[in-house]
Amino acid sequence: MLSLTQFVRRAARVNRTGTATICDGRRRTWAEVADRVRRTAGMLRGLGVAPGDRVAILAPNSDTYFEYLFAVAWAGGVLVPVNTRLAPPEILHVLRSSGARVLVVAREFVDTVAALRGELPDVGHVVYIGHDAAPAGCLAHEQLIAAAEPVEDAGRGGEDLYAFFYTSGTTGWPKPAMITHAGLFLNVLQWIAAVGVTREDRFLIIPPMFHAAGAENSIAATALAATACIMPRFDVLEGLRLIAGERLTKLPLIATMLDMMLRHPQVGEFDLSSVTRITYGASPIHEDLLQRAMAALPGARFYQIFGQTEGGPTVTVLPHEWHATAGPRAGKLRSAGYPMIGVDVCILDAGGNELPAGVTGEICVRGPGVSPGYWGLPEETQAAFCRGWLRTGDAGYLDDDGFLFISDRVKDMIISGGENIYPAEVERVLLGHEAVAECAVIGIPNEKWGEQVHAIVRLRDGQSVTGDALIAHCRAHLAGYKCVRSVEFRQEPFPLSPSAKVLKRDLREPYWQGRDRSI
Amino acid sequence: MLSLTQFVRRAARVNRTGTATICDGRRRTWAEVADRVRRTAGMLRGLGVAPGDRVAILAPNSDTYFEYLFAVAWAGGVLVPVNTRLAPPEILHVLRSSGARVLVVAREFVDTVAALRGELPDVGHVVYIGHDAAPAGCLAHEQLIAAAEPVEDAGRGGEDLYAFFYTSGTTGWPKPAMITHAGLFLNVLQWIAAVGVTREDRFLIIPPMFHAAGAENSIAATALAATACIMPRFDVLEGLRLIAGERLTKLPLIATMLDMMLRHPQVGEFDLSSVTRITYGASPIHEDLLQRAMAALPGARFYQIFGQTEGGPTVTVLPHEWHATAGPRAGKLRSAGYPMIGVDVCILDAGGNELPAGVTGEICVRGPGVSPGYWGLPEETQAAFCRGWLRTGDAGYLDDDGFLFISDRVKDMIISGGENIYPAEVERVLLGHEAVAECAVIGIPNEKWGEQVHAIVRLRDGQSVTGDALIAHCRAHLAGYKCVRSVEFRQEPFPLSPSAKVLKRDLREPYWQGRDRSI
Repeated sequence: MLSLTQFVRRAARVNRTGTATICDGRRRTWAEVADRVRRTAGMLRGLGVAPGDRVAILAPNSDTYFEYLFAVAWAGGVLVPVNTRLAPPEILHVLRSSGARVLVVAREFVDTVAALRGELPDVGHVVYIGHDAAPAGCLAHEQLIAAAEPVEDAGRGGEDLYAFFYTSGTTGWPKPAMITHAGLFLNVLQWIAAVGVTREDRFLIIPPMFHAAGAENSIAATALAATACIMPRFDVLEGLRLIAGERLTKLPLIATMLDMMLRHPQVGEFDLSSVTRITYGASPIHEDLLQRAMAALPGARFYQIFGQTEGGPTVTVLPHEWHATAGPRAGKLRSAGYPMIGVDVCILDAGGNELPAGVTGEICVRGPGVSPGYWGLPEETQAAFCRGWLRTGDAGYLDDDGFLFISDRVKDMIISGGENIYPAEVERVLLGHEAVAECAVIGIPNEKWGEQVHAIVRLRDGQSVTGDALIAHCRAHLAGYKCVRSVEFRQEPFPLSPSAKVLKRDLREPYWQGRDRSI
Repeated sequence: MLSLTQFVRRAARVNRTGTATICDGRRRTWAEVADRVRRTAGMLRGLGVAPGDRVAILAPNSDTYFEYLFAVAWAGGVLVPVNTRLAPPEILHVLRSSGARVLVVAREFVDTVAALRGELPDVGHVVYIGHDAAPAGCLAHEQLIAAAEPVEDAGRGGEDLYAFFYTSGTTGWPKPAMITHAGLFLNVLQWIAAVGVTREDRFLIIPPMFHAAGAENSIAATALAATACIMPRFDVLEGLRLIAGERLTKLPLIATMLDMMLRHPQVGEFDLSSVTRITYGASPIHEDLLQRAMAALPGARFYQIFGQTEGGPTVTVLPHEWHATAGPRAGKLRSAGYPMIGVDVCILDAGGNELPAGVTGEICVRGPGVSPGYWGLPEETQAAFCRGWLRTGDAGYLDDDGFLFISDRVKDMIISGGENIYPAEVERVLLGHEAVAECAVIGIPNEKWGEQVHAIVRLRDGQSVTGDALIAHCRAHLAGYKCVRSVEFRQEPFPLSPSAKVLKRDLREPYWQGRDRSI
C-alpha cells in the first residue's frame, strides 16, 4: 500500500545520520526527524486524534511544519494546511468546513486564532509550535512531544486521505481538494523522475508548505532521504546566503524571485555554483530572464513545472534539454512541457470532445495523482470532471510533438507573485459593499508581480464611494495578496457573451496591448 | 489506474517521431510502435484472446518482442515470456501450466514447438514473428497485423495481471510469478528515479525480455519515450559496434559481459564516450573489474541492481556516488545498495523475527512491486511470504547505514553467466537417471562465467555410469545453461544438517578456499 509515511521510515533507515532539515540554524538528522514524527504522532493521539480526524496547521514554513507533513498521517489523521495569507473570515471558513479537531499554530497567528476561537467548536486543542513559552490557551508542542511516547505508524495509505489542500476557485470560497496517500506518493515519484533529483540534492524549500508545490518539494526531499533547507519566508539576501552557505543544489522558484535574486546588488558576492537544478512555474517567465539566469547559473538545469493542486499537483514538465532558443530543440521554451510518466493530457472543447493538435480548448488531465474531488462538495466535484478527465480551467493546446502550450491561464485567473487569485472570490467581497451594483475583477500588468488585481465597478444609482474605500473593504475580508490594487469606475454596461457572462477578455485587452499574457 | 499500456500511448503522444526501437537495422518511431501494438492487439483479439487469456512468447529479443510486451496487455491478455534456454520438457511445463491460448514463436523454436504441439491442447494458434515466410502450421505475424484493425486498449491495469514470469526455485519446476500492472508500473518508475535515466537516454537492451530485468529495461525505455537498441543475443563485437554507432548511453550488463567487452582486442577501435550509465547485477563484480571499467568509461556512472523476479524485480540500488574505494563513501562497493523509494527491506531470522543491523539472516522485501505470488500455487505462495514480507531466499545483513550486504546469494543458488540456476532442478533430473542414488549440485568457481554447475553423485549399489553420460542425460532434460559441467563421484554419505538436509556449504568449501563467493 502506497503510504507517505514510508518515506520517513525509509529515510531514517537508509540515511540515519544524514542531515534532513536545516531551519533557522537548527539541523536535524533523518533519525531525529523520524523520532520527532513518531512523538508528534503520539502527542496527537493523546489529544484524541482518531483515524481520519483533521489536524489543521496555520504557520509559515519551518522544520516543525515539515515534521507535521508526516506526523498527522502517522497518527492516522488528515492534514489541513491553511494558507497563511488568508483573512480571518477565510481562515474561519477553512477551519470550520474541514472540521479540524486540532489546530497547530505559529506565533504570527496566535491572536487571530484567539479571536476566532469562539466560533470554532470543533477545535478541541490549539498547539503552539514556537520554541518559546506557549501563549495562553495554547499547548506547547516542544513540551508535549518531549513527554510523548513515540507511536507506531497508523498504517494509512492507498486511497486513504492524506490532506485537504484548499484551492480557490470560481465559486467564491476556497474548496478542500482531497489528496490521497497513493496520489501524492505517485506524483512525488513521477516528479522525482521528471526533474532528476537524487539523494545527493540539497533542496531550498521556499514555496509555502500549505501549497501543494511546497509540500511536494518537502515530501520529495524525504522520499530521496536528501536535505531540505527550509525558509520561513522569502528574503532575497537570506536566500542567497543559504544557497552559498549550505551549498544548495535545487531551487524551486517563481520568476519574480529568480529576477529579484539575479538583480540583487550583492549577488556577485555569493558563490552559487552549487546550484544544479531549478524548477520554476506558477507565473510567466520571460525569455530574457531565463537567458540571464542561465548565464548567471551555468551549472543549473531548468525545469518548468505546470500543475494545479487538483492535478496532483504536477502535470507537465518542460525538461532542461528543451530550453533552447536555437537548433532542432527550439520553439518549446514557451511551452509548459509534456505530461510526466503515467499522466495523460488532452484538450477538450466545451462539449467534452477531444480537440486535435494546434486547437485551443480546456486543458484536461488524467493520472494517478489527480485529486478525487472536493471533500463534502459533490456538485463541485462533478463539475470538475468530464468523463474521468480533470478540467483544469486553463485554456491551451498541444502541438504536433505533444507539448502543452497554455494560451490563457485559467479563463480569468490572475497570477500575482506566484499566487493564483480567482476574480470570483474578490467580486464576492466587492458585491458585499452597499455601493457596488456590478463589478468585474481582472489582472493587469505589474512589472514586479507579473499581474495586479484590478477592479472595474458600476455603482448603484445614487451611491458613491472612493476606490480607496473599496480597497479597504477588500482588505478587511480577503487575504492581502487577493486585494484589489486599483479601481476603475464605469457607467456603461459590461460587454456580455451570448450566455450573458461578462467578457473579461474584452475588459483586459486595453491593458495588455503589445504584451504577452499567454504563458 | 496504473497501466503499462499507458506508457506506449504517452510515448506516441510526447515523442511521436522519436526513434523507439532499433533492431537488426530496422528503426521504428514511437508512432509506428504504438500503431503496431494496436494492430498486434487487434490480431490477438481476432485469434480469440479474451481478457485474462495467456499469450506465450518463445523468442530471442527483437523489436517485435518489444511490441508484444505491450500488445498482449493492450488486447486484454496476460503475457507469458518463455525462457529460450529451457529444454523441451521445461517448455512444455511452462506452456501447459500457464494455459497459454496463443504461442508466439521465432524461427529458432519452430521445430521444438512443432514437436510439442500434440501435447498442447490449449494452444489454439502459433504465430511466427520472423520477417520471412511463415513455416507450416504457423500464422505469419507481419501479414496478420498488416491486415488487422488497430483496436482500443482493453483498459487493464491496477491489480490486473500483466504477466507470468516463470522463476526457477527450490521445488524442481519453474513457477509462474504473477506480475501486476500496478506492481511493474511502480517498479519501473522507482527504477527510473533510482538510476536517473531520462528521455535523452539510448538504452542497449541485452538482457533477455523473458527475464524481468530485460522487460524492466524495455518498459522503462517506453515510460521515458527514450530509444531502445535491441540485441537478439549477446555478441561482444556487435555490442561494441552498436554502442559506438548508435551513441548508446545506458548499458545493462552482467560482470562477465563487461569483462568480455573491456578485454576484447578491438575495444580500442570504438568510441564508447556516449555511455553515461551502466547498471549491473545478477552476478559478482570484482573490484578490479569495476576499476578497469571506470577507467575505460570515464563518463559512465555505475549502478548496482539487486532484485529478483518476485521482488518487482528491482529491490535495492547502489548508486554511482557510493562506488568509492576511499574517502567517507568507501566501504559500500561490496554492498547491493539500499531499498528504492517506497521499498522496505528487513532481515528475518528463521523464526520470522527482525534482526538488528550487522546480523545475517534472510533478506525480506516489502514494496508496491512485489509479486502477489505464484499463479495457481497457493502453498508455494504462502511459503514465499512471512507476515507480508517476501522471503527472497538470499542471506544477508543491513549495515548501520541501512545498506544491504548479501552474504550468501540464495542458500544454494548457482549464478553462471548471469543466469540463476537452482540445484534442486538439476538434482531432480540427475535423480531421474537409474544409476544415481543421491546427488548434490553446487556452484564451483569458473573464470569466465563466475560459477559452473558441479554435481557430486553417489551411485546405486552395483550401478556404474560415466560423468559424460550424466552430463548428456542433463542436456536432454534441462536448459543448456543449467547442465552439469563437471561430475564428482563420492562413496561416503553426504554431510547433513540437524534437520537432515545436505550441508552444501561444506561441499562447496574446498572449491572456494581463498576466494570470495559472498557477493
